[in-house]
Amino acid sequence: MATFSPLIDRLLETLRVLPGVGPRSAQRMAFHLLERDREGGQRLAQVLSEALEKVGYCERCRNLTESRLCSICEQSRRDDHSLCVVESPADLLAIEEAGGFNGRYFVLHGHLSPIDGIGPEALGLDLLERIVSERQVSELILATNPTVEGEASAHYIAEQLRSLGVRCSRLAYGVPMGGELEYVDGGTLSRAFMGRQPFE
Amino acid sequence: MATFSPLIDRLLETLRVLPGVGPRSAQRMAFHLLERDREGGQRLAQVLSEALEKVGYCERCRNLTESRLCSICEQSRRDDHSLCVVESPADLLAIEEAGGFNGRYFVLHGHLSPIDGIGPEALGLDLLERIVSERQVSELILATNPTVEGEASAHYIAEQLRSLGVRCSRLAYGVPMGGELEYVDGGTLSRAFMGRQPFE
Repeated sequence: MATFSPLIDRLLETLRVLPGVGPRSAQRMAFHLLERDREGGQRLAQVLSEALEKVGYCERCRNLTESRLCSICEQSRRDDHSLCVVESPADLLAIEEAGGFNGRYFVLHGHLSPIDGIGPEALGLDLLERIVSERQVSELILATNPTVEGEASAHYIAEQLRSLGVRCSRLAYGVPMGGELEYVDGGTLSRAFMGRQPFE
Repeated sequence: MATFSPLIDRLLETLRVLPGVGPRSAQRMAFHLLERDREGGQRLAQVLSEALEKVGYCERCRNLTESRLCSICEQSRRDDHSLCVVESPADLLAIEEAGGFNGRYFVLHGHLSPIDGIGPEALGLDLLERIVSERQVSELILATNPTVEGEASAHYIAEQLRSLGVRCSRLAYGVPMGGELEYVDGGTLSRAFMGRQPFE
């Protein structure tokens, strides 16, 4: 595909750093911007560069923000005693969008993975420990992913903070709402059986 | 969704200038770049900005390029006598990828649309006329889209260049290869009947 110029080829290639963008959509994006929206494209380049440069972690909860504190930590009407630990800002967002939780968050930005050299420091667990003891957190909801690594991280954190006397909980496992049992995987089904609740 | 900071919200919004990117994929892209590939993101911002600034039209065929002539116009082994007129660089690319055509191209960047103020000048038809007469083009393949506007543009161009004695042709209409007749639309089917060819 040497039909275009080196610069366009480089653009097509670079667009693929975006998740879910293959050669076809890169082409569509490049042509769209070059042919129909150069101004929007320049705005994107500028905002993207600025965000990548300025956005860092919230000092308290490690959520993404370009300020010292993120917008959640700045809200005073949140329950300081309940802290929800998540692996990523996307998880935090999903919980916020679901509604119902009014406490604070802590973002690990990953999970324990000794093989990749990701230990407790990389996840900010010393900061978490400090927050739990200093801010009188009474319940820690360990909302890491229901994967092997997420489970391991949750166990590790619960173990580490045990001495602080904080109550640790984990999201319920079970069948997802609105699904059909037929399509629920076996692991989830057996967890749902184990965790069955009295009716009414 | 005031969960993030103004700058991240602006990034989420700006990513939507990309075609096919809705709120969900904008989120996924922003988190991916911020969490896992800041370097790639900065490269994207830089290449995008450079491309939007430098890429213009080839002087001869109006293909996209940052040079004076595009890579096709620079190839000497192409047949100068055959010129294929397309609406967009994406169409040009599709024809190149299909293979089989070894002539030159001319890119209109659109089609005639008096309602939107797109007339012959915007499509570069004066340049096309000059090329056809100066470069001894013998066949003009009007490969505009098989739409009302594409047809109208093809007719207009054929009419304008009639006096130059160039032979004009249009891509064949018919059923697409590999499809099933059952799913071919009526308009295409009736054109395929009208254009039926002797067997063998």
